[in-house]
Amino acid sequence: MPEPYATASEARLAMRRGEWTGPTTYRMPGWVQCNLVALPREDAYDFLVYCQRNRDACPIVDITDPGSVEPAHAAPGADLRTDLARYRIYQNGEMATEPTDAREWWRDDLVAVLIGSSLTFDEPLRRAGVELSPDVWVLRTELPTRPAGRFSGRLIVTLRFLRPRDAIIATQLTARFPWNHGAPLHIGDPSDIGADVADPIVGEPITEPPIGRTGVFWACGVTPQQAALDARLPLMITHCPGHGFITDLRADAICQP
Amino acid sequence: MPEPYATASEARLAMRRGEWTGPTTYRMPGWVQCNLVALPREDAYDFLVYCQRNRDACPIVDITDPGSVEPAHAAPGADLRTDLARYRIYQNGEMATEPTDAREWWRDDLVAVLIGSSLTFDEPLRRAGVELSPDVWVLRTELPTRPAGRFSGRLIVTLRFLRPRDAIIATQLTARFPWNHGAPLHIGDPSDIGADVADPIVGEPITEPPIGRTGVFWACGVTPQQAALDARLPLMITHCPGHGFITDLRADAICQP
Repeated sequence: MPEPYATASEARLAMRRGEWTGPTTYRMPGWVQCNLVALPREDAYDFLVYCQRNRDACPIVDITDPGSVEPAHAAPGADLRTDLARYRIYQNGEMATEPTDAREWWRDDLVAVLIGSSLTFDEPLRRAGVELSPDVWVLRTELPTRPAGRFSGRLIVTLRFLRPRDAIIATQLTARFPWNHGAPLHIGDPSDIGADVADPIVGEPITEPPIGRTGVFWACGVTPQQAALDARLPLMITHCPGHGFITDLRADAICQP
Repeated sequence: MPEPYATASEARLAMRRGEWTGPTTYRMPGWVQCNLVALPREDAYDFLVYCQRNRDACPIVDITDPGSVEPAHAAPGADLRTDLARYRIYQNGEMATEPTDAREWWRDDLVAVLIGSSLTFDEPLRRAGVELSPDVWVLRTELPTRPAGRFSGRLIVTLRFLRPRDAIIATQLTARFPWNHGAPLHIGDPSDIGADVADPIVGEPITEPPIGRTGVFWACGVTPQQAALDARLPLMITHCPGHGFITDLRADAICQP
């Protein structure tokens, strides 16, 4: 079915009006998608340092000014309180609710950080002939992240099972997207990085890889979200998993953002 | 003359002991070199946002914790107060002095930010057969940067004159160094970006380009330094131009930092 929205802006307006409340996975190909983490300005310095120190997992695409809800670089005119399909509201580290509009919870002292998402490169991979299964796992690992202030934790990764030749194509191709996690961080045996295949964050438990496929692992934007959650911030607003913020940035314009 | 220091650590110790006080240009090939900006923690949040919003010019390689002088990722064990060859001390936006040791001026509330430097990729360019002249210009342009808090200003660039085929090689090669300014931002006519060839920050005034060469322009790490200077911070400590901080990071290990 062809995409009914011609531009990222039209897609965001549909979300603002409550007409689009479902996932963005494989939707709006060609536009850079981002994870959202909105948190109090008081905690934002340490969070930015955490993102810098763990750049593979947390490539920052845009940051709002305190009190502003507009990501002026990534999507001028957008309103981050309404222009995502679904949100998660966390209070003191506990999820309170999953609304389709965040205005009720937003505060003037929040800073919104947009973090590049690997949802962005699935479409270029497909265009390059890489055979993708519909399943993308999100897994905890035993790899430590570099802490900053109250933010710390283990690295979280996405896992795709690819044909060996596709793993090589995918490595070259995703290296061109440094602001959407870049090249993979691991190929092959999940146990090398302590990836928890028995208890995935997203996906079914994995007993053995599909025949003729190799696991390819990318740093995942859930990492900083989990670190912020573990820090038990009084308030944090994020996208709901699989429901990315669709920016005006073109995925193929590789010299941005 | 072969380099007398086998490792980055030995080079830094020579600087700490006051035995190396001169420039690092074309020295210690293979090690990532960085610009230093140390500023009060109070101003550091806006500075980090400024760097994020102008990433081509300000790719952050490491940030110290407040009160620490050790860049734990880029050079474990190093002391940023002593391990550069020469510093600049700025007070209220005015340069006070250019010492070879910054301990006298350092304060416990300073945060040190290391920013990737294009000095890092001159050696890979040479290895790829790119014909480099000894001259690298640093020029003001009319391109605005994206402001953050009290930080703003015009983009500053480096300019190298290359043979056209070398410009193509250099574009491909430097794209592999996203944390040292990445690919060029402009090729050709300086006036397209309002580059001030009559009054360079570094280098002689340029009347016309060398015959058979084309200008290739990269975003320059002097940009954030100038923005911090214009913000007239009470205290700022930087490297002296051409006197970079030599990290333990390998320039050829392209998946870091």
